[in-house]
Amino acid sequence: METNINKNYKQPKLTVVGAGPGDPDLITLKAVKALKSADVVLYDALVNEELLDYTNSNTELIFVGKRRGCYKYQQEQINELIVARAKSDGHVVRLKGGDPFIFGRGAEEMEYAASFGLETAVVPGISSSLAVPAYQNIPLTKRGSTESFWVITGTTKEHKLSEDVELAAKSNATVVILMGMGKLSEIVTLFQAEGKNELPVAIIQDGTTVREKVGIGTVDTIEQVVFENELSNPAIIVFGEVVSHREQILELQNKLKEELVS
Amino acid sequence: METNINKNYKQPKLTVVGAGPGDPDLITLKAVKALKSADVVLYDALVNEELLDYTNSNTELIFVGKRRGCYKYQQEQINELIVARAKSDGHVVRLKGGDPFIFGRGAEEMEYAASFGLETAVVPGISSSLAVPAYQNIPLTKRGSTESFWVITGTTKEHKLSEDVELAAKSNATVVILMGMGKLSEIVTLFQAEGKNELPVAIIQDGTTVREKVGIGTVDTIEQVVFENELSNPAIIVFGEVVSHREQILELQNKLKEELVS
Repeated sequence: METNINKNYKQPKLTVVGAGPGDPDLITLKAVKALKSADVVLYDALVNEELLDYTNSNTELIFVGKRRGCYKYQQEQINELIVARAKSDGHVVRLKGGDPFIFGRGAEEMEYAASFGLETAVVPGISSSLAVPAYQNIPLTKRGSTESFWVITGTTKEHKLSEDVELAAKSNATVVILMGMGKLSEIVTLFQAEGKNELPVAIIQDGTTVREKVGIGTVDTIEQVVFENELSNPAIIVFGEVVSHREQILELQNKLKEELVS
Repeated sequence: METNINKNYKQPKLTVVGAGPGDPDLITLKAVKALKSADVVLYDALVNEELLDYTNSNTELIFVGKRRGCYKYQQEQINELIVARAKSDGHVVRLKGGDPFIFGRGAEEMEYAASFGLETAVVPGISSSLAVPAYQNIPLTKRGSTESFWVITGTTKEHKLSEDVELAAKSNATVVILMGMGKLSEIVTLFQAEGKNELPVAIIQDGTTVREKVGIGTVDTIEQVVFENELSNPAIIVFGEVVSHREQILELQNKLKEELVS
């Protein structure tokens, strides 16, 4: 039995924290508290760097995302870094864009850390899959028209289109596809095969940030919309009648503006 | 043309705000700012009342939820109240549990308000459908095993089980069902018809709050688990292999605790 008598010893701990979709005000109070108590923060490219201001001046900040011209960390290296820094420094916060449990590999990192004896916790974040459409006045469900929503990654581990998309095209769900821009043509073909040519589609690039770009069309027209508006990743694709809620709200708001200036 | 020369006049405005799933620290900074600037707040039963402390002392607080022994507002009355209070007082915040655009009728309220000339905005919240499983260490997606998640309301406008559940039982998605406890037997039968008898299932009642209760089983055993643990609404039901992530993390954490005390 070993007793730790070093006063500076801190229990090694990992908190996986969601940073939200981009707007720095879409972080939770709980996430801010985690950042304030962090000894080390590992953060991704999709995280708004303003959020790092919530850390203490002596917190170590490590960028582990992908960025042009920078060293790219492999997932295994991130896992090892989490364990090493928690053992040497104490509380590691792993700050991820959106929600860490939605295509964020947060669960893998927690499992790895726990297997090396770290305490683990998760702080859910505002998921881009829900909030990016919301910022464009697109609700993923709407009473009387849509009873469900289905969120799918466009690109699987094997870099193929997920088989779930074919079934999703048959469903009544609002279908939200992340990381799907490279497979858009393939996805559109699946919806066309179901006769859903006129189904409204929205594509939102860099949602909730100042760089936000939006394209609205139908299954048949969306590829042309993407071409004309030069839309690319990171983008979220929404298929569903709920997309038309946006137009309804915009029309009403424009009418209001006209009345105010008349 | 009418010019408004009353200095106290405030532009009538509705902000539909997500309060998060229950834990008061799972509210966003943006939602707190909206509450601080509210003249009137209309809030639901599922909202943690601690959040009302963020309002000013002169903000009018109106409870419009369902509660035993209280007057129950109809949706139409809530809509009318929003418009009336915005016109008389200015900024109305409609505070809803979870995310207002996920089965929250937030979109309907925005449309109604906009049609009466109100400015409208939405502040997304942490959705219970994602965060309640996360607090139980259940990620809705996991690389290599689950490429999508499908969130469905158990009870439609017509009080029937949504047809989407039958297709969901055939899919590879993690299936999350809200407001489905009254239809559990019917839902289980649909998964059994697909031969998914051994699929892990979690039911989480009052998630992220001090009253939280959890039942874990399989498609075949979950009804017995509900009976033994006296689980009821408000609850979230999760069908999927990701449920077993919870057991893995708990095992590792318990092992850690044993090591620490030995």
